Amino acid sequence: MLEKFNEYAKRVVDKIDAYIYNVVRGEPETLYDAALHLIRAGGKRLRPIIVLAVAETLGADLEKALPFAAAVEIVHNFTLIHDDIIDEDEMRRGVPTVHKLWGQAIAITAGDLLYAKAFTALSKAVEVGVSVDRVVKAMEYLARACSTIAEGQAMDILFEDREDVSLDEYLVMVYKKTGALFEASAVLGGLVVTDDEPILKTLEAFGRNLGIAFQIKDDILGLVGKEEVIGKPVYSDIREGKKTVLVVYALQRLDQEKRERLLSILGKKSASREELEEAANLIISTGALDFAYRLAREYAEKARAALYRLPDKETRRVLEDLVDYVLVRDR
Amino acid sequence: MLEKFNEYAKRVVDKIDAYIYNVVRGEPETLYDAALHLIRAGGKRLRPIIVLAVAETLGADLEKALPFAAAVEIVHNFTLIHDDIIDEDEMRRGVPTVHKLWGQAIAITAGDLLYAKAFTALSKAVEVGVSVDRVVKAMEYLARACSTIAEGQAMDILFEDREDVSLDEYLVMVYKKTGALFEASAVLGGLVVTDDEPILKTLEAFGRNLGIAFQIKDDILGLVGKEEVIGKPVYSDIREGKKTVLVVYALQRLDQEKRERLLSILGKKSASREELEEAANLIISTGALDFAYRLAREYAEKARAALYRLPDKETRRVLEDLVDYVLVRDR
Repeated sequence: MLEKFNEYAKRVVDKIDAYIYNVVRGEPETLYDAALHLIRAGGKRLRPIIVLAVAETLGADLEKALPFAAAVEIVHNFTLIHDDIIDEDEMRRGVPTVHKLWGQAIAITAGDLLYAKAFTALSKAVEVGVSVDRVVKAMEYLARACSTIAEGQAMDILFEDREDVSLDEYLVMVYKKTGALFEASAVLGGLVVTDDEPILKTLEAFGRNLGIAFQIKDDILGLVGKEEVIGKPVYSDIREGKKTVLVVYALQRLDQEKRERLLSILGKKSASREELEEAANLIISTGALDFAYRLAREYAEKARAALYRLPDKETRRVLEDLVDYVLVRDR
Repeated sequence: MLEKFNEYAKRVVDKIDAYIYNVVRGEPETLYDAALHLIRAGGKRLRPIIVLAVAETLGADLEKALPFAAAVEIVHNFTLIHDDIIDEDEMRRGVPTVHKLWGQAIAITAGDLLYAKAFTALSKAVEVGVSVDRVVKAMEYLARACSTIAEGQAMDILFEDREDVSLDEYLVMVYKKTGALFEASAVLGGLVVTDDEPILKTLEAFGRNLGIAFQIKDDILGLVGKEEVIGKPVYSDIREGKKTVLVVYALQRLDQEKRERLLSILGKKSASREELEEAANLIISTGALDFAYRLAREYAEKARAALYRLPDKETRRVLEDLVDYVLVRDR
């Protein structure tokens, strides 16, 4: 299982990283170290792998797709740095977060630097032969995705103060916060080769649904994942009062008393381990995990259905594996 | 004096603002209110005016230059929001800063949103007939400027902990932090019409030198400006330990004892009004103001010299006025 994906990742990850390191270079060293910290610490490179596998499936050479691949990974890492400041998270990918190591001022600035570098990477596609028309389209698409991510981030923040977030609102939020960049990754992979609207729409459906499935699975891992595997403290979603799919579901199902109890722990920064476990158990008691698994599978199947409309190539199998991976992953 | 500039500003500012409001629109409302807060509060729109006046001087229609003009003003406002968080400033343009009103999480995100919107504005230049080649060049140039700004911001932060910043280092920092966006504004104005290298180099020289002069004048206003005119507390540079040109100069001129005294107040968050005034007087006693005025004038004259290589049009006078304005402004 996941053979094609693992093989492909092995083949391309060093190229992606080399491209990123070549673009994200400069002075002062402190700033660049901070900007590259999480990239160096690991990460799965899912988004650039989507760009590359989509582009290859549609007939492009790998090299031609690298600038767009680097761009989406750089954007992803920029959002992680700013998210960690916003959520006051101290660990990510098994290492201290950027603001923990360099302070908030440098961390904000390092995120801003990466944002700029993403568009620099994008512009380099011209040098490897992507048509300028499609580079401008890619810029427009990536910029819109970045606005959408900011909107999703804001919804996530504002939801912390609300007790009545509906499943529909949750789904809009995760589409924006997570789905939009997966969507952009798939579409940018397409734009390396074509601007055929039906193909781009298919890619959009693939990326969007995959991204939503990914985030739902992320919510699940936040509740039942192993700390040493996911690289950050479990239950941090509860401590931060995040309206995950599990919390949204549980708040609708619990009786008045248990609901009040759960609400009293959600977002309590000083919550003890016992309280966090109590909250987790209240959530689990509603069958929220089962609901979330089914929901994630539903979106993953939509993503898979979109894939079947692409040419039947080796690299398409990589993307099919990726759909499975999103569901089975433990980190 | 400044007649041409004032007339021109009157003619174009509403168009710039309308363009920005059209691009920066969406939900959640809270996020967009935060993002637009400083734009609504005022500002001089110097950077977009440079874009427009340069483009018109080179023969473009105003409408064709509006997307690039909006882009640089949006970038400027994004940097203000993040700068205010970093410097913990509470007032700007006579109103509370974004993080004071909406909190840090929304403020970081509002800045990120504007960043994305700048590139969205840029991409719209295609719709008004700017060639895609030059739009890609503009993206590349603006992205590089944004990286440069982040580098300058990081230098500014790192300088706070240093006592031996040289004038040369200061000049690199202000070029990066402030000069780069003025430079990009002038070059983007050029790219509306042409990609002739000598013209773009001339515009670069104009923008870069103007920007450096602007920042030196800003340092001066931070020491001797009137609070109710500049819209923020005077002496905040001293409280934050900023290595302004005045501080750099003074630290090189003061005797050991006075130097130690100045250093003991620089960056002291709890400094009293008396201490801040004492520090200001120590700085002034070295002749730093006179030195800074001369330095600002020197850069302004370089900017003016570059202008004389552009076609002799009405709109060039606007830019000439702007050089004067940078020197005489009191806010």
